[in-house]
Amino acid sequence: MPERWTELENEFRSYIKQITAYNEAIALIYWDMRTGAPKKGINQRSEVIGMLSSLVYDLQTSERMAAYIAELLSPEAKSHLSPITLHALKECKKEYEMNKKIPKDEYEEYVILQSKSEHIWEEAKAKADFFLFQPYLEKLVETMKRFINYWGYEGHPYNRLLDLYEPGMTVDVLDRVFGQLRKDLVKLVQQVQSSSAKPDPSILFFPFPKNKQKSFSLEILKGLGYDLEAGRLDETVHPFATGINRGDVRITTNYNEKDFRTAVFGTIHECGHALYEQNISSDLDWTPLASGTSMGIHESQSLFFENFVGRQYGFWKQNFAVLQRYAKGHLDHVSLDEFYRAINESKPSLIRIEADELTYPLHIMIRYEIEKGLFSGEIEVKDLPQIWNEKYQEYLGVVPSHDGEGVLQDVHWAGASFGYFPSYALGYMYAAQFKNTMLKDLPNFDELLETGNILPIREWLTEKIHKHGKMKKPLEILQDVTNEELNAQYLVDYLRRKFSGVYQLS
Amino acid sequence: MPERWTELENEFRSYIKQITAYNEAIALIYWDMRTGAPKKGINQRSEVIGMLSSLVYDLQTSERMAAYIAELLSPEAKSHLSPITLHALKECKKEYEMNKKIPKDEYEEYVILQSKSEHIWEEAKAKADFFLFQPYLEKLVETMKRFINYWGYEGHPYNRLLDLYEPGMTVDVLDRVFGQLRKDLVKLVQQVQSSSAKPDPSILFFPFPKNKQKSFSLEILKGLGYDLEAGRLDETVHPFATGINRGDVRITTNYNEKDFRTAVFGTIHECGHALYEQNISSDLDWTPLASGTSMGIHESQSLFFENFVGRQYGFWKQNFAVLQRYAKGHLDHVSLDEFYRAINESKPSLIRIEADELTYPLHIMIRYEIEKGLFSGEIEVKDLPQIWNEKYQEYLGVVPSHDGEGVLQDVHWAGASFGYFPSYALGYMYAAQFKNTMLKDLPNFDELLETGNILPIREWLTEKIHKHGKMKKPLEILQDVTNEELNAQYLVDYLRRKFSGVYQLS
Repeated sequence: MPERWTELENEFRSYIKQITAYNEAIALIYWDMRTGAPKKGINQRSEVIGMLSSLVYDLQTSERMAAYIAELLSPEAKSHLSPITLHALKECKKEYEMNKKIPKDEYEEYVILQSKSEHIWEEAKAKADFFLFQPYLEKLVETMKRFINYWGYEGHPYNRLLDLYEPGMTVDVLDRVFGQLRKDLVKLVQQVQSSSAKPDPSILFFPFPKNKQKSFSLEILKGLGYDLEAGRLDETVHPFATGINRGDVRITTNYNEKDFRTAVFGTIHECGHALYEQNISSDLDWTPLASGTSMGIHESQSLFFENFVGRQYGFWKQNFAVLQRYAKGHLDHVSLDEFYRAINESKPSLIRIEADELTYPLHIMIRYEIEKGLFSGEIEVKDLPQIWNEKYQEYLGVVPSHDGEGVLQDVHWAGASFGYFPSYALGYMYAAQFKNTMLKDLPNFDELLETGNILPIREWLTEKIHKHGKMKKPLEILQDVTNEELNAQYLVDYLRRKFSGVYQLS
Repeated sequence: MPERWTELENEFRSYIKQITAYNEAIALIYWDMRTGAPKKGINQRSEVIGMLSSLVYDLQTSERMAAYIAELLSPEAKSHLSPITLHALKECKKEYEMNKKIPKDEYEEYVILQSKSEHIWEEAKAKADFFLFQPYLEKLVETMKRFINYWGYEGHPYNRLLDLYEPGMTVDVLDRVFGQLRKDLVKLVQQVQSSSAKPDPSILFFPFPKNKQKSFSLEILKGLGYDLEAGRLDETVHPFATGINRGDVRITTNYNEKDFRTAVFGTIHECGHALYEQNISSDLDWTPLASGTSMGIHESQSLFFENFVGRQYGFWKQNFAVLQRYAKGHLDHVSLDEFYRAINESKPSLIRIEADELTYPLHIMIRYEIEKGLFSGEIEVKDLPQIWNEKYQEYLGVVPSHDGEGVLQDVHWAGASFGYFPSYALGYMYAAQFKNTMLKDLPNFDELLETGNILPIREWLTEKIHKHGKMKKPLEILQDVTNEELNAQYLVDYLRRKFSGVYQLS
C-alpha cells in the first residue's frame, strides 16, 4: 500500500520540521549570546537553551522516531520514499543510535565533566599550568574511549571520532595525506625561512577605525556574492558564521584597530562558510540535511575564499584601491606588490589561530598525531607537554616557553572535541583539489578575480558543493567533483608555487 | 498529606518553567525580527514562532494543566501552597479558560481573519479608503462579540475586553473618570490654544546625527537607572521595550536626524517600561507572574518617566548642558526656559501617536467611546468615519481631511485589539495619582530631578509597583499605593498647573 508509506513519510517530515524549528531557535539564541546579549540575562538564557535542547533530544530519541526509522527504512517502504526523506531518515538514524548507545547516566556525567573541564582549562591556560588540567583531560579521554566502545568502530578506534566531524574519514587516509604534507611542507617552510627576500608586514599596521573597517568588510562581502538580505554582519570576540536558516546566515567578525587583517581575512573566511549555507537547495529546508555536509567540506569553502580568493594577487588588483580609500592615506605609498607580499608573510609560530597559510597545516598535524596516539594508547595524557614541544621543534622549529602558549592553547580538548582538528587541514586539501578541477571549467580564474567577477566561481561551488547540503557525504563530494580520491599533492603544489613567488625562491 | 501537595506544587512549577522558557525564546525571536533580522529568513522564522507558540498553547491547555488547576486549587491543597504558586495557578487558570472556551475551529478562523485584516487595513490606510476595510472590521467586531459571549461577562459586554488588558477595569469606572477628563481637558486645551504666549518649537529642529543621539540616549538611560548590564539599546521602526527575562530587558528607539525629540522622549518612555521589568522580584522568575501586571500600569511607568521626569524643568536643569554638548552648537543660543517651553508645546492634532501630553488623553477618549458603542450595539461599523470626525471636531477642534489620518490611523482594530486603547489614558491617570502619593514620601522630588538623583524615585516605584510583577492586580496596586480608588483629578491638576506655566495662563 504505497499510500500508507506516503502518509507516514509526510508525518515523519512534519516531525523533523519541528526538530528543525527548535534547532533554529537555539541557533538564534547562540548568535545573540555571542553578539551582545546582556550578561545578567545569560544564566536564565542558558537554561532556556538547555530546555530547548532536551526537547530536541527527546524528539530525536523518542519511540516515535524509532518507529519512523524502523518502518520507513524497511525494504517495502524504502523504495516509495523521496531521496530527501531517505537521506533525512539516515541522518536521524545515525543521531538516534549515537544517543541511544550511551547510557543516560554516563551521558549526564559527561556533560558535567565537559563543562567543568572548560572552566578548569581556562584557569590552567591563564596560569600556564598543565597539571591543573591533566586529571580532567585524563577523564575526558577515558570517557571518550568508553563511548567509542559503546558506539563501535572499524579499524582504528580514533576512526569513530573522526567520523563525528568528517563522516567516512579514517586514520588510513589521514596517515597517507598527512605523511606527504609533513615531508613536503616542513621542507618548504625551511626554504622560505632561509630566503633573504622577506616581505615587510610593518606597512600593514596603522590606525584603522572600526567603522571604516566595517564599511570595507561590507563592500568585500557584497563583491563576493554574500546576500545581505539573507544575512548580516556583526561584531564578536571569536568570529563565526551561523546558518540560522537558509535565508538568515549571519557572519560575525572581530575588529583590531591596529591590524585590519584580523577583520578583513576573518570576514572573508566566514563569508566562505556563509556562502555554503546560503546556497543550499531550498528542497532541503526543514530537514537535518539543510546544512554543510561536514566540518572539512565547510572549512574547504571558508579557506577557498580566504586563501584562493582573498590572498591572491588578482583579488587585490581589484580591491586594493578600495582599501586604500578606506585607509585614508595610510596605504597610499604602498605598491600592490608590496601589499601582496606583506599579507602573505609566512613565519613559524606557536599559536595555531595566528598561523599563516603555509605553516597552519603543520599545527594541525601535530594535534592529529597526538590525538591518534591518545586513542590507540601509545600516548599518555601526562606526557603531552613534552610531546607537544618536541613536535613543534621538529616541524616548525619553535618551542613554547610555557604550556599556555603550547599544549593548553586550544579549547577543543577541554570540550572533548577529539577528532575535530583534522577537519581544518582536510579543508585546505579539499580546497586545493577543488580549485584544480575548477581551473578546467574556469581557466580564466585569475582574470575573474582581477575583474571582480566572482559570480562564476560562486556558481561553480554552489552547483558542485553548496546546493547538496548533507545529501552527499564529504568523500562522495570530493570524488564526484574531482574524479579522484583525496590527494595532498594539489595543496603542496599550490603552496610551493605561491610561496616561491612571494619569497622569490629559485 | 501535605507532602503530596508539595510534590505536586514542585511538579507544577517545573511545568510552568518550561512554558516560561519557550516564551523567552519567542520574545527573543520577536526582538530580533524587529531589530534587523535578514528579510529572506522571515518566512521560515515566522513558522518557528508559530511552532513554539503552539507548543506553549498545548502546555497551557493540556489535561495535565487542567489537573494541576483542579488539584492544587482544591480547598485541601490551597492552604499548603506558596503565595507565588497560588497566584501562578490563578494566572494559568485564567489563560486555560480563555483558550478552552473558544471552539478550536472558530479560533483558527479568527487568527486567519486577523492576519488578513491587518493586510487589508494597511492598503485601506494607504488609499484612505474605509470601505475597503469595513467588511473586515465588521467581521472582527462580530467575532469578538461571539467570543465575549463564550467567555461570559458582568455588566457591559465591553468589560470583558477591558479585562484582557486591564484586569478588573469596567465601563463604570472609565465612564466616571473619562467624563471628568473630557470636561476639564477640552476646556484646558481651548485655554492653551487661545494663549498668545506660545513656545517656539522651531529651535528644536536641527541636524543631529544618529550616533550623537545614541550616545546622549545612553547617557540619559544610565542617569535614569536603567541597568545596561541587564539590557541594551537598539534601533527599530516602532520603538518598544521587551523583558526577555529579568536580566535581559531591551529597549529600542527610532532616530530622526532632523528632530531629536523622537529618540530622546521615545527612549525615556521605553526606559520607564524597562525599569518596571528589570526590577520585578527575582522570586517570580520562571513564572507567568514575572512581568508587568497590566497594560495600564505598564504605561503608567513609561509615562511617569517620559512626562513626570523627562518633560520636567528640573530634569533639564540637570541635562540640558549635556544635550547642548551633543548638539554641537545648535542649542548654544537657546536658554533652558525656551527649551523647556518648546519641548512642552501643545497643539490639537489628528494623529494619536504624535499628540502631546495634554491632548493625548482626548484621542484615547474618542476611541473608548467608539469601542464601547460598537460592543453595546449603539454604534455600527459603517458609521465610524462620520462619528470619528465629529468627535475630533468636538474634543480637539480638528477634522481629518481623509480617513487615512482619521479612523484608519491605528492598527489596533485591524488586530482585533478592542479594549486596549483605554490603557494609554489609564496609564496617565495612574501615573499622576502615584506621583501625588510619591510627593508625600519624597517632598523634594523636584530637587532630586535637578540634582540628577533619580535613585530614590526609582526605588520608590520598585518598592510600590515594580517588584510585585503580576502578584497584585492593577486596581489593587493603585489602592495599596495611593489608598484611594482611581481619581482623574490628579492628572487634571497636574496638566493645568504645568500648561498654565508653559502658556502663561492666568
